[in-house]
This record gives sequence, structure tokens and C-alpha cells, in this order.
Amino acid sequence: MHTVAILGASGYAGGELIRFIDNHPHFEVSFLGANRRAGQTLRTVHPQLSGGERVLETFNVDKVVETDLVFMALPHGMSCEPAMLLSKSSAKIIDLGSDFRLDTPQRYVEAYGHDHPYPGQLGEWAYGIPELFATAITSSDRVASPGCYPTSAIIPLAPLVASGLIEPTGIVVDSMSGVSGAGRGASEALQFGAVDESVKAYKVLSHRHRPEMERVLDTFTANGTSVLFTPHLVPMQRGLLSTIYATARQDTTLDDMLSAFDELYGGAPFVNRIDHSPETRWVVGSNNLLASMHLDERTATVVIVSAIDNLVKGAAGQALQNANLMFGFDESTGLPVEGWMP
Amino acid sequence: MHTVAILGASGYAGGELIRFIDNHPHFEVSFLGANRRAGQTLRTVHPQLSGGERVLETFNVDKVVETDLVFMALPHGMSCEPAMLLSKSSAKIIDLGSDFRLDTPQRYVEAYGHDHPYPGQLGEWAYGIPELFATAITSSDRVASPGCYPTSAIIPLAPLVASGLIEPTGIVVDSMSGVSGAGRGASEALQFGAVDESVKAYKVLSHRHRPEMERVLDTFTANGTSVLFTPHLVPMQRGLLSTIYATARQDTTLDDMLSAFDELYGGAPFVNRIDHSPETRWVVGSNNLLASMHLDERTATVVIVSAIDNLVKGAAGQALQNANLMFGFDESTGLPVEGWMP
Amino acid sequence: MHTVAILGASGYAGGELIRFIDNHPHFEVSFLGANRRAGQTLRTVHPQLSGGERVLETFNVDKVVETDLVFMALPHGMSCEPAMLLSKSSAKIIDLGSDFRLDTPQRYVEAYGHDHPYPGQLGEWAYGIPELFATAITSSDRVASPGCYPTSAIIPLAPLVASGLIEPTGIVVDSMSGVSGAGRGASEALQFGAVDESVKAYKVLSHRHRPEMERVLDTFTANGTSVLFTPHLVPMQRGLLSTIYATARQDTTLDDMLSAFDELYGGAPFVNRIDHSPETRWVVGSNNLLASMHLDERTATVVIVSAIDNLVKGAAGQALQNANLMFGFDESTGLPVEGWMP
Amino acid sequence: MHTVAILGASGYAGGELIRFIDNHPHFEVSFLGANRRAGQTLRTVHPQLSGGERVLETFNVDKVVETDLVFMALPHGMSCEPAMLLSKSSAKIIDLGSDFRLDTPQRYVEAYGHDHPYPGQLGEWAYGIPELFATAITSSDRVASPGCYPTSAIIPLAPLVASGLIEPTGIVVDSMSGVSGAGRGASEALQFGAVDESVKAYKVLSHRHRPEMERVLDTFTANGTSVLFTPHLVPMQRGLLSTIYATARQDTTLDDMLSAFDELYGGAPFVNRIDHSPETRWVVGSNNLLASMHLDERTATVVIVSAIDNLVKGAAGQALQNANLMFGFDESTGLPVEGWMP
Repeated sequence: MHTVAILGASGYAGGELIRFIDNHPHFEVSFLGANRRAGQTLRTVHPQLSGGERVLETFNVDKVVETDLVFMALPHGMSCEPAMLLSKSSAKIIDLGSDFRLDTPQRYVEAYGHDHPYPGQLGEWAYGIPELFATAITSSDRVASPGCYPTSAIIPLAPLVASGLIEPTGIVVDSMSGVSGAGRGASEALQFGAVDESVKAYKVLSHRHRPEMERVLDTFTANGTSVLFTPHLVPMQRGLLSTIYATARQDTTLDDMLSAFDELYGGAPFVNRIDHSPETRWVVGSNNLLASMHLDERTATVVIVSAIDNLVKGAAGQALQNANLMFGFDESTGLPVEGWMP
Repeated sequence: MHTVAILGASGYAGGELIRFIDNHPHFEVSFLGANRRAGQTLRTVHPQLSGGERVLETFNVDKVVETDLVFMALPHGMSCEPAMLLSKSSAKIIDLGSDFRLDTPQRYVEAYGHDHPYPGQLGEWAYGIPELFATAITSSDRVASPGCYPTSAIIPLAPLVASGLIEPTGIVVDSMSGVSGAGRGASEALQFGAVDESVKAYKVLSHRHRPEMERVLDTFTANGTSVLFTPHLVPMQRGLLSTIYATARQDTTLDDMLSAFDELYGGAPFVNRIDHSPETRWVVGSNNLLASMHLDERTATVVIVSAIDNLVKGAAGQALQNANLMFGFDESTGLPVEGWMP
Repeated sequence: MHTVAILGASGYAGGELIRFIDNHPHFEVSFLGANRRAGQTLRTVHPQLSGGERVLETFNVDKVVETDLVFMALPHGMSCEPAMLLSKSSAKIIDLGSDFRLDTPQRYVEAYGHDHPYPGQLGEWAYGIPELFATAITSSDRVASPGCYPTSAIIPLAPLVASGLIEPTGIVVDSMSGVSGAGRGASEALQFGAVDESVKAYKVLSHRHRPEMERVLDTFTANGTSVLFTPHLVPMQRGLLSTIYATARQDTTLDDMLSAFDELYGGAPFVNRIDHSPETRWVVGSNNLLASMHLDERTATVVIVSAIDNLVKGAAGQALQNANLMFGFDESTGLPVEGWMP
Repeated sequence: MHTVAILGASGYAGGELIRFIDNHPHFEVSFLGANRRAGQTLRTVHPQLSGGERVLETFNVDKVVETDLVFMALPHGMSCEPAMLLSKSSAKIIDLGSDFRLDTPQRYVEAYGHDHPYPGQLGEWAYGIPELFATAITSSDRVASPGCYPTSAIIPLAPLVASGLIEPTGIVVDSMSGVSGAGRGASEALQFGAVDESVKAYKVLSHRHRPEMERVLDTFTANGTSVLFTPHLVPMQRGLLSTIYATARQDTTLDDMLSAFDELYGGAPFVNRIDHSPETRWVVGSNNLLASMHLDERTATVVIVSAIDNLVKGAAGQALQNANLMFGFDESTGLPVEGWMP
């Protein structure tokens, strides 16, 4: 068994990581890190889990340095310090946060409005979409697991961008996410009274996942890409649906698109194409991404609809999928291939 | 008092019409028409309303012919027959359905896949957005009240199309609606178990509200318009949000857009522009439409977010607003200008 | 027009009060008090309301002293100070909070665990259920408007206790409430992620509304009453349902119970008895209470199911109903007798 | 591997059975029976599951007769025929329905209003609560798996009834359930528009689970028991909470109650007592039951709050727990001991 530390164990993604690893044949949880809730038992923090007597602890590099694998499921900006403290440890690290996903200091400043504290790290972490970057992930000790929105957009767009079937610029990603994507902390905007029976767009034109999408899609084309991204909050716990619009290149047919997708993802256990547009309840609880592709000949527009569970394929599940690759296991080991419904 | 007949009184829009008219100073309900639920009391069908001893009846032209105003809130295709039977009645008619919204037989065939039974009627009914077509509505005895999605899209797009600030083609309308828009009848797809905690796109590239949007927007430009429309179902009762993307014409500024909007709607009691993108809970229960406008200079794209209550401004409220104009009352008479929250 | 001050205008009950008074023929809002949100516009705090440019202000007795009517919709314990400051004002006061609902210092200590700061006030305020205490309310300048749970329980129990049809002790009130009853402030326990898709009992055996129920029911019997009260939180915004169990006295028949209810409430516009057990959606948006009564002969138990909108009949609506009585208007003036559905 | 047939595979409980058995080390699905949806693929019926190419078939005894284990997850009244057809098969049978749960023809008539078609079967099936009846289940080839409401009530009540700490009569079980308990078929009462944002009691004094509770509790006391049961529908998918009231025998202390519970369930993997009243989200997704016990000395009333996932411990999970016992496996084999949250 390989030992696993989870920093940010009290959050939703942390809880799912614990659940998956408790059921994994080769990993076992050896450290549960928390900040505000350090000292509390797992029974208090995650009453849905077993082993409730386990205690969450404040992070301390000495407690983690000999761990085989460290997951960081921390708020933005909080991953840098533990990552640097562990720089000489032999622990492999997977960051579920956004600190190491971008590739250049310039892109980071554009996204976050300030310099990265360790700009040399940018581009040094493998970007953790296993279906696209398995080689890099397998050979890396540092993996930046993607954001939930980018996961839903990059996976179906990559084959179309790579094959030149769509214009790489002017892509519109219109997404809606369940509330768990916003984390577990108290905020007036996330009260039941403010979320239930209502929808809204948020961070219109300014969400940080847009540069992340462009940074990854850029790797599939010699020309730069441009994306316009609008996230929406919808009144549900889990699930994320992206409806994506791109301009079809002349002569692109629907069959071309389907073939490009199927060629890239034919053997992937968690990425599936279907004919009808998916519903998020079909993937909730599993590590699956479902996508459908459509071509509007009237306006020469490609429409893609993709669905994931934001906490599984969009967070904890994909992170574990990366871990499986990094340790040489089958990528689906210990991951749910079947969801629950309702 | 003017007498009012409501055909389709047992549905959600019918229930809201009854509620509004029960509280209107100049209209009173004189006939409640229903089909499957004829013979039942209002207490059974709409227990939220008063006057529960009122009985729903099967439509019969003799019972309605002397009514001053007839609202038809019927499923698609069911408005033609009562409208024709009432053709020699002096009753004014407002159709909340889609039978008379399109302008040409060709557009109708394109939208519905079959010929209109009375093609001569197409184009004869005023299109009932009071903020845009008050003159036609005021002078007409026949008004086709708009669909909920078109209402949310046409109102904010009209000033931009009319002023030439955006390209009239390639407009993308990406909308999400609460479930009441799908009506009240039993269906497996609308069970709580199928809707709650899930979102989906539906009728991708084929929803009938797309031709309705184009038909109306075409009246604001010499060039034809083209729209790509994707509706989504979200787990809430009421509320509709549209996020709209259009290509900005060169030199268009955000100020140009705001001015065009404000000039057209400056005095409108129910159409308001705000700086931040709206949430649907801010309009639920009222007849208001709220919209925000944004310009993405990176991609030369205009983004509009608009919110309405699909049962009020998107159905019963707007229908009553039309009725007020047709009878010479202030357009806001008897209509809620304040919503409820939560 | 009578001027009205609302202290606690930023909360849910405050918002409903504003909406009702904006539509009332004899009252008008003259002061909006808030604490944390003082200085903000109504547009920011209650975007669903009109007159968005109105500004919320810090309470100051000088601003309110000449107002005709003051509503206090404040957190528990916060009503005492403004009430005392206004003791020499001619303003009538209605407290939606719980500071003045109990009748004796002993009962207050039992409920809250500490002494009342102005124990002489206890018993001096009329208890504001208009259907039971109209005379006292009409002749009083100080009314304590009831809690939402007590409203749902006392109204149907009062006729049965008063007529001796049930044992006055051993009554069980098992209630479930939508989340708006817990107010609008941020708390981890009220996050969408903690409330949605879950139910719980809370404050088992210790909720403060239990002594309030007993204090009022005691007035209907020479013997003391005892109540066991269990509130539950359910994932909805509005609505409150109480299922009530009491021991039937020997020879009590269902007809006796129905007659006692009907005799007391025959003319009441907002209290209605129905044959089937009610659903909360039948009353949401209105000031109505619906109740059904059942007799289990196997166990000699009376079962009552009652439903209200916790923010209307359970808070703002009932408060305004009290105000109407205090100023000599018809009790239903300006109050919604029809709800919305869905 | 033992082969498993699932009759009623298209329902919610059927879907959960498939998911659990797909992940079970000793069972494998060999037949998926359905009625209305026979001929459809699993992809269509349960898109959340893998092996989507599997096809649902009409039940035919020849296809099932050599199966090792048959689960029947059928509507009430539909289990009799397949059970009789399989009477000479060596297949073990577990019925998730209510056809074989009662013990006498009299009790059946009382509950269902008509005679049982095979009255000799009543009392012949082991009642499938493993924590209480493991011996009978282990030695039986026919197990009637309990209803969801009875599971939540009987487990915490059994030790108190058995030890004489509470009066066995006058027990009140007040429960609320998520909507999945009502099955998957279309009905107007289960539309999102009818369920969301509302709660109701249903089948007041007449629900069929009441006789089931009494039939089982009777086995723990020489005196008969009586229960008054009120189920409520709440707007969530899964989860069931019961708040239970019983009269404490004189001298009963809280410690007595806790000890009785702990003695009976000390080693049970899925039954846990906690100090605070549970929330349903703490058990959703797992096979756990959580319960808290409280004593109101003012009214000599015991209050119990218990929570389960109605589709897992209340249906498919408990059925598989029974299967494990019947085949000699550890009772928790293949069952989720950890839930998901949110």
C-alpha cells in the first residue's frame, strides 16, 4: 500500500478523495490535513464517511515528507507553500487547485491580476487530463489536475481543434455548474435562500478558467485559440454541463467531427460520446464524461454538449485517475464507472 | 367591468391569469375553460386560488361569444379552432400559444413540419411585446402573445439589431428555464426524479422558438437575421435566463449599446437594464425583465444576460399587459411590479 | 396615509412587509431600518422590489418617533431596545420577533435561559393571532406577532382545547419548515450544500416555540397544557407544515372536532378547513392557513395537518393583518388571499 | 460467481441492485427483467450504469429457473406470480415488494382491503432485517425485504419494545421521505411542478406500512403493539427520516434506552447510534442507519430520530445484505459503508 496525504481534507473534493482512497486497493490515507477544522474528527467533518475517529491535523511538512503521494485540495493560492516545502521530498504531488495549471507567468498575471510567487514552476507541472496527456502524467512527479469547467470543455474540443475541423478562435463555452463547485465555506451568495429556485451567470467575461482553457487548447494548434467563457450557477449539488459553440471550417461534416472524437478517445474508459445531448444525472457519482456533437449547417456552427460530475471527473476522480497513472496502475483502479440515479 | 374567458384555465399560465384578473380593477373572469378537467372546481385544480367553488367547463362557443376578452392558454395547435369559431364574435382574443405568432406559411412549415390549417391568419395577429409593438397591439383585436424564450431574447436584442450595432446573423441564444415552462401534464421526463439535481439541453438545433425569434428580429433590419438557440431545463419551478452572444460591429462600444437600449426602453415600466448580470430570483413573481450588457473586446462579442419569470413576463403577465393596451388601460394595471424573494 | 417604519428591513420578513405595504391603500413606508446593511439601497438588498433607490438607514429613535406604525422584524433579543426608546412615542408597535410573546418572567427564563431585560413588559403586549384575539389586538398599541410554528399549531388546536375535545397535555407538534424561517444571514448550516437534498430535526426537545405554544393554549383551558415540539428543516424556501397529535377525550367524534373548528373560524378570511390533508404549495404566497382533521379510533388520537406560508401568515402577512385591526381597517386589506403555484 | 436475476430492473431500486451487483465479488447479473421497458438497452433505461448494451427482457420462468438468486423489485401485487412460478426452482428469492411481508391473512386484508392470492405463503418468508433476524434469513430460501419506512422505525424501536422500556401501544411514527420511494413511473402528483418547494402528508391513517410495523414489533413483546404512522413527501430524491414518539415506562432513563440499543446493535456494521439527531445527507449513498434517542421527562415521552437512504438500507442495499447472509458471505460484502456528500 502507498501512503496518501490529503491537504484540504475537510472540503467536498477532500471528502470524495477520502471515500475513493478508502476503497482503493493500493492507496491508503495516512494524513488528513485541514486548517480551520484541524483537531476535529472525521465524524464531525464528513459524517458520511467511515473511520469517523480519524482526526484532521494542521499541515506540517514533517508529517507528510515521507508520504508516497500528496493531494492538495486547497483554495486558490494555498498550494504554493506546501508544494515548495515538499520540493525535496520524494512524495509525488497532485494539485487539485489552480496554482500550477497555467504555463507562463504572463498567462498567470492575465488570469489572476498578480505575479505568481514561484513563476519558475509554471509549465513544470504536467496538466492532468489523462485522456490527453497520459505520457507526461506518467512520467511526472508533479501534476496539476484541471479545473472542472476546463475538463468539460477541453476534452470534447481537443480533437476538433487538433484536426482543424473548427476555427480555433471565437469559441464560446457556456456552462452551468452545481453549487458544490464553489466549495463548502459559508457565504451569503451560497445560502440555500440565495441559490435555490434561481439561476445566474457569474464572473461574466472574467472567470479564471478561460485562460486555462486557452492555455491547453493552444497545445493542439499552431495558431492561438480564443475562448469566451460564461459560467452559470444552477440549483443543484453536483453536475456540470457545458454547451459549446465553435465555427465549423468549410467542408467540415458531422461525420468528420465524430470520427475525430472517436479516434482520440476510442479506448478511454471515462470519455464517451452519445448521440443525444446528455443530462448531468447520467454522470453524477461516476468519473465519466459524456458528450454529444451537433452541426448547425444554417450558421456553420458546431454545438457540443458535455456533462461531468464536477466533484469526480471535475476534481477528486480525475485527480485519482492521474495518481493511478503516476504509480503505474490501470487508470480506472478504484474509480466509479457507474453513477447513481436519482 | 369587462368579462374575460380563459381557455386552458387548468394550466400554470391559466392559473396565473385567474390570479391576476381576480385582482384587476377592470376585468373579471366570466368563463373558465378546460378540457380534461372540465367539471372540476377551481378548488381542486388551483387550490391556491380563492373562489374555489367556481367550476371549469368544456369550451363551447355559445358560452364565450359575448365575452369581451378571450385568453387562450392552450397546447400548441389547439388555438386555431376556438379562434376560428370566434371569428365573428366581437370578443378580443389574446393567444398565449404559438399558433399565430409566425408571419408566413413558409416560416410555419419550417418550424412545425406541417402546413398551418389557416395560413391566411399568419401575419394577421399583432405580435404581443408591448414595449416594441404597442401601436399594433392597441389597434388590434387579435394578439399573439410571445413565447417565453423569444421574450427574453428579442427585448434586449431589438435595439442592437435596429441600430446596427451587432451583426444580425450568427446570434447565439443560450437559455435555461424552470420546469413550469413545460406545462402541468404528467410525463416521465418531468417527474421530480428526472428533473431535480440535473440539467440538460433539449431540442438542440430544433426548438420552435428559434424561427419565432428570427421572424421578429427580421422586422428590425433590412437584412435577414439568423439565430442559433439552445434551451436548457434546470431544476426550478419558475424563472428563465438567457445568455446571448452576438458579433459586435466594428467600432461598437459598450456605451453605444447601453444608449440604444435606454433610448428604446427608457419609459417602459417592466424592462430594466442593470450593470451586473441578473439572477432569476430578482424577477420571479413580477412582470419585469432585467438585462445586462457586456462587450468582450478580445473576441468582438456582445454578451447579454436577461432574466424573466417565464409564467409572468413570459406568459400570463405579458398577455395581460397586452390586454391592458387593447382596452385602453395603463399597461401596468393589475400587474405585479414587485416580485417575491425567496 | 399612515406612515410605517420597518426595522429589520433587509431580512426576508422585512422584504415581504415592504412589498405588502407598497401595495396597501392606507399605509406607506416612511423608514427602512437596517443594521449591517445600513446605507445600501433597496435595489441592492431587495432587487425584487421597486423603488430601488430607497436607502436603508441605521435606526435612530428621532427618525421614527413620529411614525404612525413601527414593525420590528429583528433577531431575537433586539426588539427590546427600540421598543423602550419608543415607549413615549404615539407610534403603534408590532413586533415580529419573540421578545414580547411570552406572558411571565418565569416562562421567559424557561424558554431562553436568562432573565428578560424588561420583565414588566411580559403580558403587556397583545398576542397577535387575529382569529383568536381580535378584541385585544384592536384595543392595543403593542402587539407581539406570533412565531411561525406556534401560528400553525395554535390556530387548529385552540378550538379543540377550548371545547375539551382533546386532552390538553401530551400534545405532539411535529413540524417541517422551509429555510427562509431561519433568516437570511450566512451560516454553514444553511448553505445550499448543507440543506439541499436533506432533512433533519433540530433543537429536539429544546425549541423556544414550545413554551410559546403552551402559553397561548393555556388561555383556552383551566388546566395547564403540555406540548412536545419537534421542528424539522426541509429543502424548500417557503412553507410550513405541522402534523399534530393529541389524545381524543372519550366520546369525541370527528364531527365534534369539525364543528368546534367551524364555529370558531366560520367567518375568518384566512383560516380554512379542508377534508384532505393540505400541501404547503397550496398556501405559499397567500396569508391563508389550511388545516385538515382526522381521528384515529384505533389509538384514540386526533391528527391535525396544517399548512401556512411561514413568511406570510407565519410572519409579515399576519403582522399586517394585526396592523389592519389596530388601525380599524378590514383585516384582509392589502393582504394576498390567493397564492402562486407552482 | 452466483448468477442473479433482477425482476423490475428498470426501476430505481432495480438500478441500484444492478450497480451493487456489478461491483460485488461473488454475484453477477444474468437476467434483467422488465415489463413496459422490455427490449430496451440498459443504456436507455439506466444511462448512469455501465454495460449499456445489456438488454432488458420480459420475465419468463424458463430464463430464470436456473438462476441462483432472484430479486423481485416489482410494484405491489406483482411478486406473487413469479414467486409461485419459481416455487420448484432451486433459486433463492428476495422480494423487495410488500407481497410477502405480513404474517397472517387477517393482517393482509386489514392492510390491503382484499385477500392474499396465496395466503399460505404469509408467514413463510423470513422478514429481512439482518440486524434482527439473521438466523431466520440465513436458513431461508425466501426473504421478504422490508419497506423503507418500517426499516427506519423497527430497528430503533425493537430494543425498546423488547426490553419493556416503552409502552408498546400508542407509538407515533412521523416520517418524511424523498420522492424516489414512490417509484419512477409518470404521475401528475410526482411531477417536479407538484413536488418541488412543497411538503405534504399523505395516506394519513391509512398507509400500508403501519400494519407491517406492528406485525414485526409484535414479535418483541407478549402484548400487542399499536402504531400511528404518518408519512410525508419532501422535495428531495433520496433519504428518509423518521421522528418517533413513544411513552416511556415509569423509571425508564435515557441510559437504559441507550444501553438496550447498544447491546442489540453493538457489532452491526450498518446500524449506528449518535448523540445528535441525524441528517439524511449523512447516510445517503450508504447502507447505514443512524439514530439518536431522547427522553422528554416533562411528558414522559421517548423521541427517536432515525435516518436511512430509502433506496439503499430502505431497499436495494438491505436486499443485498440479506442475499449475503443467505449465501454465507459477510453481510457487508459489496455494500457501500460510506455515503456521498453533498
